[in-house]
Amino acid sequence: MEIKYPLVLINFKAYSQASGKKGLELAKVAEKISKDTGITIAVAPQVTDLALIASRVEIPVFSQHADAVDPGSHTGHITLEAIKDAGATGTMLNHSERRIRADQVDFLVKKARKIGLVTVVCTNTPEVTAAMAALGPNMVAIEPPELIGTGIPVSKAKPEVVLGSVELVKKVNPDVKVLCGAGITTGDDVAAALKLGTVGVLLASGVVKAKNWEEAILNLVKPLLK
Amino acid sequence: MEIKYPLVLINFKAYSQASGKKGLELAKVAEKISKDTGITIAVAPQVTDLALIASRVEIPVFSQHADAVDPGSHTGHITLEAIKDAGATGTMLNHSERRIRADQVDFLVKKARKIGLVTVVCTNTPEVTAAMAALGPNMVAIEPPELIGTGIPVSKAKPEVVLGSVELVKKVNPDVKVLCGAGITTGDDVAAALKLGTVGVLLASGVVKAKNWEEAILNLVKPLLK
Amino acid sequence: MEIKYPLVLINFKAYSQASGKKGLELAKVAEKISKDTGITIAVAPQVTDLALIASRVEIPVFSQHADAVDPGSHTGHITLEAIKDAGATGTMLNHSERRIRADQVDFLVKKARKIGLVTVVCTNTPEVTAAMAALGPNMVAIEPPELIGTGIPVSKAKPEVVLGSVELVKKVNPDVKVLCGAGITTGDDVAAALKLGTVGVLLASGVVKAKNWEEAILNLVKPLLK
Amino acid sequence: MEIKYPLVLINFKAYSQASGKKGLELAKVAEKISKDTGITIAVAPQVTDLALIASRVEIPVFSQHADAVDPGSHTGHITLEAIKDAGATGTMLNHSERRIRADQVDFLVKKARKIGLVTVVCTNTPEVTAAMAALGPNMVAIEPPELIGTGIPVSKAKPEVVLGSVELVKKVNPDVKVLCGAGITTGDDVAAALKLGTVGVLLASGVVKAKNWEEAILNLVKPLLK
Repeated sequence: MEIKYPLVLINFKAYSQASGKKGLELAKVAEKISKDTGITIAVAPQVTDLALIASRVEIPVFSQHADAVDPGSHTGHITLEAIKDAGATGTMLNHSERRIRADQVDFLVKKARKIGLVTVVCTNTPEVTAAMAALGPNMVAIEPPELIGTGIPVSKAKPEVVLGSVELVKKVNPDVKVLCGAGITTGDDVAAALKLGTVGVLLASGVVKAKNWEEAILNLVKPLLK
Repeated sequence: MEIKYPLVLINFKAYSQASGKKGLELAKVAEKISKDTGITIAVAPQVTDLALIASRVEIPVFSQHADAVDPGSHTGHITLEAIKDAGATGTMLNHSERRIRADQVDFLVKKARKIGLVTVVCTNTPEVTAAMAALGPNMVAIEPPELIGTGIPVSKAKPEVVLGSVELVKKVNPDVKVLCGAGITTGDDVAAALKLGTVGVLLASGVVKAKNWEEAILNLVKPLLK
Repeated sequence: MEIKYPLVLINFKAYSQASGKKGLELAKVAEKISKDTGITIAVAPQVTDLALIASRVEIPVFSQHADAVDPGSHTGHITLEAIKDAGATGTMLNHSERRIRADQVDFLVKKARKIGLVTVVCTNTPEVTAAMAALGPNMVAIEPPELIGTGIPVSKAKPEVVLGSVELVKKVNPDVKVLCGAGITTGDDVAAALKLGTVGVLLASGVVKAKNWEEAILNLVKPLLK
Repeated sequence: MEIKYPLVLINFKAYSQASGKKGLELAKVAEKISKDTGITIAVAPQVTDLALIASRVEIPVFSQHADAVDPGSHTGHITLEAIKDAGATGTMLNHSERRIRADQVDFLVKKARKIGLVTVVCTNTPEVTAAMAALGPNMVAIEPPELIGTGIPVSKAKPEVVLGSVELVKKVNPDVKVLCGAGITTGDDVAAALKLGTVGVLLASGVVKAKNWEEAILNLVKPLLK
């Protein structure tokens, strides 16, 4: 499944609000709004639900993490091949809650490209964003960890971090697209993110913990509609 | 789903032979033989396939691993709650390819008991088996790592390791059941394991890599039939 | 160097107050009081200072951690052999701030016994204490992490955790001695610890951050003097 | 202590041949040759020996590793501050046997610069070299892991990896100097490394396991003498 930008990527994390049946339900809401509005809304459900959800929705589904191993004798590891076999479109890598090493990102990004999976590598500072861009993923997602889950949007609270990241990525590897995340909750936050040169947002609690998922997602994509 | 002993637990690891659709297929074969013979055959598919496979078969399904965190802001982690929501019966913990720390096993075993998941903690020596038994899981599975994947069955090559484990577990925590694994391929290996005081076997490549899954599993369960 | 009980083990952690020259100074103060009082006071300095301090004091010196590898091609790892070559008496293992896996504790305890190093394995719950005792270290040190650094002594705030640990260790492996730690600051805390069946205490901030090290340590050992 | 280039950095790893007294002895040999020839020879002893060796030689001494934490309650961690207090000149980071994450390299490089420690970040591919250069350490050291310890010098066996790294670093961050390592044993290997645009070499077994340390090091520095 090809990704069209702008992109709104909803990370379900390990939230109980979006686990099992509720995870499928949230993915269905995202799919409906994506179809209604034409905006690409992707979901990253709990890994345990990956194949099930990927088989039930027609929006891009991402793994939240992948391990840097080839298929084989690796109990409890999540291979890119398993993610592909599960029907997913791509994978997040190096989220602040699940960091991996640069050589592992390198291994995973190269293999994902080969087997046709999209990669989104999370970062925390402009320098780390530049470093990860040097590895050539499809996207990097700058997320200052101190803002994650706060509702204080990076695009408004720390525009210089986003701008600095966009700038450095242009220099190091202009093919890499930039998302931003942390604290994103409203359509305004998304609009601010796009103005800073990103192609979309990565968010989690702002949607997952919302009382009304449909309302929360609609609010987010509003500024993306013409 | 309650576990009836003896138990044959098939670990799909990260083998490409048992990923995605092929994983479901293998689970279906296991289910068929379990129904035909009355022997409990459980499967531990790739984590990405967990909910999908658990929703399609009526044999116990295990996760290959769980992370020692509560539901919440833990991207890329596998919680016990997500395993439960996926419809699984239990989880393996501390496999030699995915070891965790003793305090994490303690956390996970206590919580699994509370939420109704069955735990199988893997170990490598009689002393570590005793240590893990002290934490009170449902089962421990002694697997000398040097025999894993070799086809040389622990139950025949190192009976003293299995016997020593069974002995120590009886002393430390007699409620804990003992499985053994590593190199198990034939019904003879299973029979030898049961004679040593275990309640079953944990195996992987012996089935997953077999050309004919049905034949391989039937061969394994033969000595368990009266 | 043989350990005589009771034992007061002072962990310098990564505190700047006890790093480099100041680390040596604190070790010297501990040595002086140990000689004056006859009470065994051991120190666990920063690993970078290990050989230097061990060459300058005549009290037991412990490493704060060891890695479960043999000497060889393991850049940045701390082997038991290097700890021994540095002149240390033993090593702490599995501190709550540097947990390792049970199979690693097993490997390290067995090898330490062989090469003549004393092991102190830290734990957090009675169950984990029992588990670690099953591996046969010289000592276990029960330290509820939530009390570490608080000044609220485990021996008074959670006597049941210490008692429960002492009880279980007696059952699982009566040769293993029990220390307790977390929040220990005064001689009263130490006295309470001994009454619960421990052979001594493990402490850190209560001494390291004290304005007057000599006073702080003297205060601790007072109840141990006849 | 300022680093003058070219630089020969000898990593003692966890080799028993260079632990404790023998580590000090090897450092003394390196110091002697450095004084005799004027070539900068730096040593990275076992971390347990760091302060002792740094207090006894007048050549640059490096830690083999540092942990990404501030001084404080971090038992068993190696802080940059402790490395500095031990009298060392700098630290290696991210060796293939002790990889850390990119955000940790970022944290450590920034802090090392502030407190006056020199950083050498190891890498495995040209892409990872570029990524690490984006973080601004003093040096990167490209070492294809498959050649480490083989005696097959990267500078001759994989010149394209070294050249590719030098090229990318120039583009991403021309202030960063490039070392190369893996398989370096003779003066010829060092000469080849310098021709490829590096400022020196990182090596280990080629010296540490040599029967005659003096001979081995002299052989290495020969092509650097006019």
